[in-house]
Amino acid sequence: MNYDVTFIGGGSFGTALSVMLAKKGLSISIYDRDEKVVEDINIKRENMKYLPHVIVPANVVAHNNLEEALENAKYVVLSVPSNAIRGVSKILKSYIKEDVVLINVSKGIEEHTGKRLSEVIQEELPNNHVVILSGPSHAEEVSIDIPTTVVATSIDMKYAKEVQELFMTNKFRVYTNDDIIGVEIGGAVKNIIALAAGISDGIGYGDNTKAALMTRGMSEIIRIGEKLGGKKETFAGLTGMGDLIVTCTSMHSRNRRAGILIGKGASTEQAIEEVGMVVEGIKACKAFYEIKEELGVSMPITDALYKVLFLGKDPKDEVYQLMTRDKKSEVH
Amino acid sequence: MNYDVTFIGGGSFGTALSVMLAKKGLSISIYDRDEKVVEDINIKRENMKYLPHVIVPANVVAHNNLEEALENAKYVVLSVPSNAIRGVSKILKSYIKEDVVLINVSKGIEEHTGKRLSEVIQEELPNNHVVILSGPSHAEEVSIDIPTTVVATSIDMKYAKEVQELFMTNKFRVYTNDDIIGVEIGGAVKNIIALAAGISDGIGYGDNTKAALMTRGMSEIIRIGEKLGGKKETFAGLTGMGDLIVTCTSMHSRNRRAGILIGKGASTEQAIEEVGMVVEGIKACKAFYEIKEELGVSMPITDALYKVLFLGKDPKDEVYQLMTRDKKSEVH
Repeated sequence: MNYDVTFIGGGSFGTALSVMLAKKGLSISIYDRDEKVVEDINIKRENMKYLPHVIVPANVVAHNNLEEALENAKYVVLSVPSNAIRGVSKILKSYIKEDVVLINVSKGIEEHTGKRLSEVIQEELPNNHVVILSGPSHAEEVSIDIPTTVVATSIDMKYAKEVQELFMTNKFRVYTNDDIIGVEIGGAVKNIIALAAGISDGIGYGDNTKAALMTRGMSEIIRIGEKLGGKKETFAGLTGMGDLIVTCTSMHSRNRRAGILIGKGASTEQAIEEVGMVVEGIKACKAFYEIKEELGVSMPITDALYKVLFLGKDPKDEVYQLMTRDKKSEVH
Repeated sequence: MNYDVTFIGGGSFGTALSVMLAKKGLSISIYDRDEKVVEDINIKRENMKYLPHVIVPANVVAHNNLEEALENAKYVVLSVPSNAIRGVSKILKSYIKEDVVLINVSKGIEEHTGKRLSEVIQEELPNNHVVILSGPSHAEEVSIDIPTTVVATSIDMKYAKEVQELFMTNKFRVYTNDDIIGVEIGGAVKNIIALAAGISDGIGYGDNTKAALMTRGMSEIIRIGEKLGGKKETFAGLTGMGDLIVTCTSMHSRNRRAGILIGKGASTEQAIEEVGMVVEGIKACKAFYEIKEELGVSMPITDALYKVLFLGKDPKDEVYQLMTRDKKSEVH
């Protein structure tokens, strides 16, 4: 086979994008290590585990074998959890040529090293070009043609523009933005805020409370993001504010759902188990806690979440303290 | 009687704030022209029409007679729709002394003159001090002690600080911000975006779509707001972004509910009638349409909404066109 695009990881977003590209007439393969997922896609034409109720077109073929999945692929999409990015990149090295463009749709930051995912991929595959695709785009909606807007970015913007053309449809609008740092940092930090917003919902606090948390969360994203080299206008755009909003308010968000469970009294482990998929905000919280300590950036929501997730503090106390900090003026 | 605070207008927000201040031990009066509302508050201890299911404490007294309601009041809260602000201010002139501090909680802008509400009040009552209280604060949540944050602003910040102390509780946090223009403009424009977001929901578009609309809406608020003299950081704060989020995502928002009805096919008039309360976004859309034409500021969401509300255009076409404008790069 000659696949136009190969997806590494048949999760909900990878599957949704596959379906979308297949409808554009492209030939798509999905690699997933879960045999059941592969079988469901190929036989039932539905990813029962990660994206039920969506028909997968016949020009999407799933594989358990990486080599088969990658056959002649021109574009490889990394649609795995953020902590699998380095491992997957290492493995890909022996399978792909240097002219393959890598597209990462995972959002997070590498634990302990604090590296952005494009940096991680580039370290392992230094001769391939890496494009980041990010923005407010829940898989459940992308897969049923709900109007969605995302951003493509890369170090050499030629490749971001190539990916823009590749993914663009009437319902899935791809913009370019040359601030790769801002795009990646915004996408990672927003999951921390979404988890905190979910906790507020789980406690039983209201829309007023959550809007305040999100507003302060946005300041937190801008503070750490600018320190790390991103641009303010990127954080105010689709990959920052846009993605923050969708992640904090949609029931499709796993981070928010995990937060709701924790707000209702579940432990971090119970919440992860119940959500059943990777909760990026938990890992991002740990990673950014270390980064902000090192850089001396004030991130009170991240601090509070860290205490709840890893030090067993009561979420109600923490959210309450966030809300009632002794601060008199809005702008410091 | 000696009232500490008099509310002009027994709508949902006026009543919610009355209840909150009454719980702080203050003596409160509410003026409302609707005899039924006055009777319900005084006899049933519940504002059945605007804020049902919330008990109004005995230290809140409602009046049909303005003079009685204003007896010795030190603070007068204007909690009427924005288009009633000038009329109410004119009437108040003969009833209040110059040391009474006026607090406006209404959000909007005067039609045709394009004046901010504090300017309107000040024109009619030039010798009184005016404080604006604004932020993400749905009445339904304030009245049941859901943690809420708002901002107080005034030309002479001494009075904003006075009002901060007056309203501050453990659950209702008041911050100060000296950018009165930014606070008032943000509070008015966000209703336009919320109406558009509601339309997107009503059409059946998703969270991805709405997050994109809100993100672009935020840019629209900043563009017109800066042009009118407000500060960017104010628009990124509670009275801008925070209030935008709560208004676009909460079912408590009348603007959003009106939008949903219009998105489902209702006419502007039908939506207003069904919501049964004032829909500020409709008036704000007309007012800001004129302002942005005059100032030459690009406000594509306001344009699209104007066409839907006043020129009978199909909302589906308009939202679709907003989403698919021929734009390739995120930041112009």
